[in-house]
Amino acid sequence: MLERTLSAIRPLDPAALRQARERQDTLTKPPGSLGRLEELAVQVAGIRRTARPRIRHKAILTMAGDHGVVAEGVSLYPQAVTAQMVLNFLRGGAAVNVLAAHVGARVVVVDVGVASDLAPLASGLHARAGSRFVIRKVAPGTANMARGPAMTPAEARRSLEAGIEVLEEELAKGLDIVGIGEMGIGNTTPASAITATITGTPPDQVTGRGTGLGDQALQHKVRVIEAALAVNRPDPRDALDVLSKLGGLEIGGMAGAMLAAAANCVPVVVDGFICGAAALIACGLEPRVRDYLIASHQSVEVGHQAALRHLGLKPIFNLDLRLGEGTGAALGISLVEAAARILDEMATFAEAGVSGAEA
Amino acid sequence: MLERTLSAIRPLDPAALRQARERQDTLTKPPGSLGRLEELAVQVAGIRRTARPRIRHKAILTMAGDHGVVAEGVSLYPQAVTAQMVLNFLRGGAAVNVLAAHVGARVVVVDVGVASDLAPLASGLHARAGSRFVIRKVAPGTANMARGPAMTPAEARRSLEAGIEVLEEELAKGLDIVGIGEMGIGNTTPASAITATITGTPPDQVTGRGTGLGDQALQHKVRVIEAALAVNRPDPRDALDVLSKLGGLEIGGMAGAMLAAAANCVPVVVDGFICGAAALIACGLEPRVRDYLIASHQSVEVGHQAALRHLGLKPIFNLDLRLGEGTGAALGISLVEAAARILDEMATFAEAGVSGAEA
Repeated sequence: MLERTLSAIRPLDPAALRQARERQDTLTKPPGSLGRLEELAVQVAGIRRTARPRIRHKAILTMAGDHGVVAEGVSLYPQAVTAQMVLNFLRGGAAVNVLAAHVGARVVVVDVGVASDLAPLASGLHARAGSRFVIRKVAPGTANMARGPAMTPAEARRSLEAGIEVLEEELAKGLDIVGIGEMGIGNTTPASAITATITGTPPDQVTGRGTGLGDQALQHKVRVIEAALAVNRPDPRDALDVLSKLGGLEIGGMAGAMLAAAANCVPVVVDGFICGAAALIACGLEPRVRDYLIASHQSVEVGHQAALRHLGLKPIFNLDLRLGEGTGAALGISLVEAAARILDEMATFAEAGVSGAEA
Repeated sequence: MLERTLSAIRPLDPAALRQARERQDTLTKPPGSLGRLEELAVQVAGIRRTARPRIRHKAILTMAGDHGVVAEGVSLYPQAVTAQMVLNFLRGGAAVNVLAAHVGARVVVVDVGVASDLAPLASGLHARAGSRFVIRKVAPGTANMARGPAMTPAEARRSLEAGIEVLEEELAKGLDIVGIGEMGIGNTTPASAITATITGTPPDQVTGRGTGLGDQALQHKVRVIEAALAVNRPDPRDALDVLSKLGGLEIGGMAGAMLAAAANCVPVVVDGFICGAAALIACGLEPRVRDYLIASHQSVEVGHQAALRHLGLKPIFNLDLRLGEGTGAALGISLVEAAARILDEMATFAEAGVSGAEA
């Protein structure tokens, strides 16, 4: 399934890109005056392989997983919060629910590797209309990467395939754009380790405070990441090796969903730092994925800049966000939709009888 | 009317500000992790004088006016485009229509000083549902500021009062937030002149390419502004003097609408560079207005940075926009609404049964 998906990813459609660019310059505005909105609309045209793409069906996939490395004391919050927050997503009380509702996107919550059994608790909840809970648990959390591999290679592959499957199921319901986010206590630690490995940056330059670590705890987190890299020696040219040794299950799920979206011509709005690490894995497996990615925001987490630079992605905005869940992706979806509507709905100079620039 | 409005502007409500800040820290997210969204929601709480403000009624006021200074050759587009674009707004074909529809805001187009008579043309148009056309024409365009005052002091005052009147009419329909924008061929020239005067910056540092001037035309535009300042000697401490000598009618209308919004506890989302110049006028008349302003975006126009710095406003995003009309304000409204929804709709830690940070 992974190989089939990777081989289905094509370059963007050059004809749609060209037609969209040409149309931009006929609309009643000075050429280029809508800046990034114009660029985003052209990119979406190339991805959707049509000159005037319409965005109606929107989803945010929020992938959840736990991390053995929390045993090293790298997070301010107890591991139980991962499961508690999944239940909060299903009740509609989390930030991602509010922002997804604001932008008209459905929320799909995926348990790829939460440490506790959520099925009995989740079935008793009345999920908010439009949200969905999918259990694709590969393992009840990863092993502690500071002491050995976080996952087996088979688990890493299954986490990618879980993301592919969920994305493909959503396609059947209509999917014109997808935002990707996550929940996993401790997951800035593997995200920093992945970013350090793939971008070739020392861990202390890509490790941040997560949910709010103090100076001493931040130093400890860096040492834990250094230990994980020394123990595991992940191969930066082999993204599956990096994913399996460092984790986590939700990061694999996110990378898989990105691959499947690209294979099916669906634009992917990337959330923050952890999602950026998943994008590094996805692009390591197939570099063509990159053109299907839209970085929503610049996270407060210091390592995000290195990830975006490596990917060659420029975030749409910087709101000093550091929450995750897909919150930044939700806001990004709204801006991409706005960009596509401009391209599709504005009048041309000819239609509106407006004079152009003088020679 | 102007004096009554100025004296009605109060400081933000300290109790609502405090209650909103306290609520932010009870919501199911690490404290501060939603960055600027948290700050924006608190500001709106202080403006609306309630701890959980709801944004339902949204409007964008797009003020139009012409400028005598176009006789100096400062714009790439002919003056007729101002009127043509007003008709485009009324037909729903412009960028501001598309973006206002996207964020659920109504559009109010105001003729404060368009050079031609729009009434006969506009009455034959079927305005798109939710948009409205108001004629409050103070004069058919300003005089050429490079040769003398753009307006009389009485005209400047009437332009401010036109904006106050239109804003107050909209209040009756429900108005929880307002975006302010403009249309006026040539109006980056008076906006640069106002910004240079009030911020005390040399004209060549606050003058940009507008709709797309080349290098030589840009040098000419700077010289025209220098001539206008030499001829008129506007007093930077007297905002009414600055407005009347440099123009324009739509800039006065925008400043008046900002004053009336502040007097009526309505948050104002400021568009780009020309709207920023109007904000300099409004804050010159009454500095308390500033706390009611939210800068939506950082414009490509170089002078916008000086205006925002002087006002102490930080733009929400930078999308390389340079169109005007209220396009950036529309996108800003959506982000402010998202921020308010977070504050109002998210579950608290206690409600969701989620554990807090460990000591």
